[in-house]
Amino acid sequence: MSDISKLLARRERLLGPGMTTFYREPVHLVRGKGAYLWDADGNRFLDAYNNVAHVGHAHPKVVEAICAQSAVLNTHTRYLHEGILDYGERLTAKMTPELSSMIMVCTGSEANDIALRMGQAMTGKCGFIATDNTYHGNTALVSQMSSRKKPIGGYSQNVKQVPSPDSLRPLGGSPLAQAREFARHVNRAIEMFEEEGFGFAALILDPFFANEGFPDLPRGFLDPVAQVVKRAGGLVIADEVQPGFGRTGGHFWGYERVGLVPDVVTMGKPMGNGHPVAAVVARPEITAAFRGAFGYFNTFGGNPVSAAAAMAVLDVIEAEGLQENARKVGDYMLERLQAMTHPFIGEVRGDGLFLGVEFVSDGAMTPAGDFTENLVDEMRVNGILAGHTGRGGNVLKIRPPMCFSREDADLLVDTLETILAGTCA
Amino acid sequence: MSDISKLLARRERLLGPGMTTFYREPVHLVRGKGAYLWDADGNRFLDAYNNVAHVGHAHPKVVEAICAQSAVLNTHTRYLHEGILDYGERLTAKMTPELSSMIMVCTGSEANDIALRMGQAMTGKCGFIATDNTYHGNTALVSQMSSRKKPIGGYSQNVKQVPSPDSLRPLGGSPLAQAREFARHVNRAIEMFEEEGFGFAALILDPFFANEGFPDLPRGFLDPVAQVVKRAGGLVIADEVQPGFGRTGGHFWGYERVGLVPDVVTMGKPMGNGHPVAAVVARPEITAAFRGAFGYFNTFGGNPVSAAAAMAVLDVIEAEGLQENARKVGDYMLERLQAMTHPFIGEVRGDGLFLGVEFVSDGAMTPAGDFTENLVDEMRVNGILAGHTGRGGNVLKIRPPMCFSREDADLLVDTLETILAGTCA
Repeated sequence: MSDISKLLARRERLLGPGMTTFYREPVHLVRGKGAYLWDADGNRFLDAYNNVAHVGHAHPKVVEAICAQSAVLNTHTRYLHEGILDYGERLTAKMTPELSSMIMVCTGSEANDIALRMGQAMTGKCGFIATDNTYHGNTALVSQMSSRKKPIGGYSQNVKQVPSPDSLRPLGGSPLAQAREFARHVNRAIEMFEEEGFGFAALILDPFFANEGFPDLPRGFLDPVAQVVKRAGGLVIADEVQPGFGRTGGHFWGYERVGLVPDVVTMGKPMGNGHPVAAVVARPEITAAFRGAFGYFNTFGGNPVSAAAAMAVLDVIEAEGLQENARKVGDYMLERLQAMTHPFIGEVRGDGLFLGVEFVSDGAMTPAGDFTENLVDEMRVNGILAGHTGRGGNVLKIRPPMCFSREDADLLVDTLETILAGTCA
Repeated sequence: MSDISKLLARRERLLGPGMTTFYREPVHLVRGKGAYLWDADGNRFLDAYNNVAHVGHAHPKVVEAICAQSAVLNTHTRYLHEGILDYGERLTAKMTPELSSMIMVCTGSEANDIALRMGQAMTGKCGFIATDNTYHGNTALVSQMSSRKKPIGGYSQNVKQVPSPDSLRPLGGSPLAQAREFARHVNRAIEMFEEEGFGFAALILDPFFANEGFPDLPRGFLDPVAQVVKRAGGLVIADEVQPGFGRTGGHFWGYERVGLVPDVVTMGKPMGNGHPVAAVVARPEITAAFRGAFGYFNTFGGNPVSAAAAMAVLDVIEAEGLQENARKVGDYMLERLQAMTHPFIGEVRGDGLFLGVEFVSDGAMTPAGDFTENLVDEMRVNGILAGHTGRGGNVLKIRPPMCFSREDADLLVDTLETILAGTCA
């Protein structure tokens, strides 16, 4: 039995069936550095997928911050400590001024679980709206917003899904109509909640629509929906787990990129470069209402080590100019991706170090999901770790650590071109 | 403005009002070592409260494990890695053989959120039962099991609370009747769920009843309730966040101490000595049913660093004989606490390094909550960090790091005696 088969058997036995792995041939990783990962046989992979290792795998400054603080003190926020305060001030200084209060937790799921309840606390109502091809986390409440797997007993009656925007198949039939059409769907869901007696609490969305395949949308796209939500007295929650922390290059947050001012912002994965830390940032009256209603406390949330890890990530982003790197390398890679030719390429899109290629099998824009999955597997065989996403699984997802270089971009696109050249369309 | 006032003002501004601190005079901690903590003015405190720093604050072996793994690789379980498998095999080897599968997450709240849904996945039903003076975590679902703060919109209809056991005020009026009476309440709740159409999914409880004031209960106390739950086809979830990992001295798990075989076990706080790691352990068919129903994935859960931290904690418990230390020092401290005299002492109880004194103001067993709160504040002024719990807040809670020594126990009891001698009953 090979090493891989043995590990898979141990996983199945210990972690249960259905613990999915990436790729037809799962990867057994043992080491990481910057944008590279190595498997147990010494094979090197260019990591073009993992946003968790935001500033690069095993970044020495983040490791140092974790080690230094772990060796001194790790405790909870029922004692006073400067770590969480220094971090919170630094983080909120990077946001719209009214977003000035913060709750630190451990996972993006915990952050979204709080954000939704902030909607309840502010409105006294309980209707939630999410898009129909998304994922916001794994708690019982938050998984109700997920379209990946229908929860046992079905979706709660206080959750409604609205159609996701799409660049190749725009809502309302045209890119111009799409923003209005998206807002109309949200408005209709709000009206239904009012009719049904639930009332409307909050709309949650990723302003980059990463799980929806990050459609190409104009700045201001969310203006009509933000007006609809505001008029109804609900909250807009921006889930920045994917686009946040400078990834899109031109902006530090996905909400800035589209010109939205959300009421609540949640963040997770990239925040601690792999250390389990996440946060909710909101207007102070929202945080106060939530604390008053729920008396929330999180033992590990905002502990000195988590705060130190998160602070080091902000330090490295600034010291190494990683947002600017995302913009420059992203622009370069986008240009190279756009120059590729293949009959299945439907659209090349994205921003900064969050890029993708949507593959379609015909002029009717039929998603080429199997083709894309095979492509991603071929890339893995050729030493590049990427992913695929979108409703049809037909969008190649490139979302590497932020230290991804021009040379890394060349390696990725060269490999991709070679593989595409060998595929039959 | 003093340092403390400044920190409190920053907290209020940044983290929102109502972020509670411990003690009338909050403590500004800067350093920890073993069972001791130091504040910013260099004052030393004996930590008699924090079970998170299970093997001692800033334990070098745990710090080393975290640093070593962080410097090499930190990623998620969609790649293969030995860390989670080695840990899971080691952990489940310490449990009842049928409890052989594990899901790793980041917080006890996430663990309980899964455990409850395991109940749904196994039964197809959705009624949950918890005790009426408890806390199991902070997600939207799990906070429904909490009696501390009524959720907005009230408790869900699929949640019922049953009266907590108590040693001074036993259910049914006598210690002998209590086990039967507790089971009768659970049985009645199950019948009501069936009548109402929710059906019964799971009973969740801490087998040590820590938040209920850890009443003195005989081995076998939970046998009748376990039979009732089994007969109804539901699950018993044992929340080991407080009693687990050897704390009670005689047993590694609280469920073993009382002779219960649970279907699902959850753990959190002490598991990584402060690193955010938690887990659910269950019979394999339960884990399989949950995975099949929910397709759960947790990005940070079971990452190589979290697995290394958790493994180091098990190593240290064994290498330093901390379970045995808990038994020996606990027995010694219990004896010294029992020798104290004060008219308000209602009962001295607990096990291992989880001990308490229940204070009552009269023969009718009226809880002396204010008295106990003042006592805990006086202890803090005198350099001992303890807590208080129970329905009336009148149980002094002693739950120190597991390296607590005989000398530490003497310091604690001597200080307590001096303070008690100065109080008017």
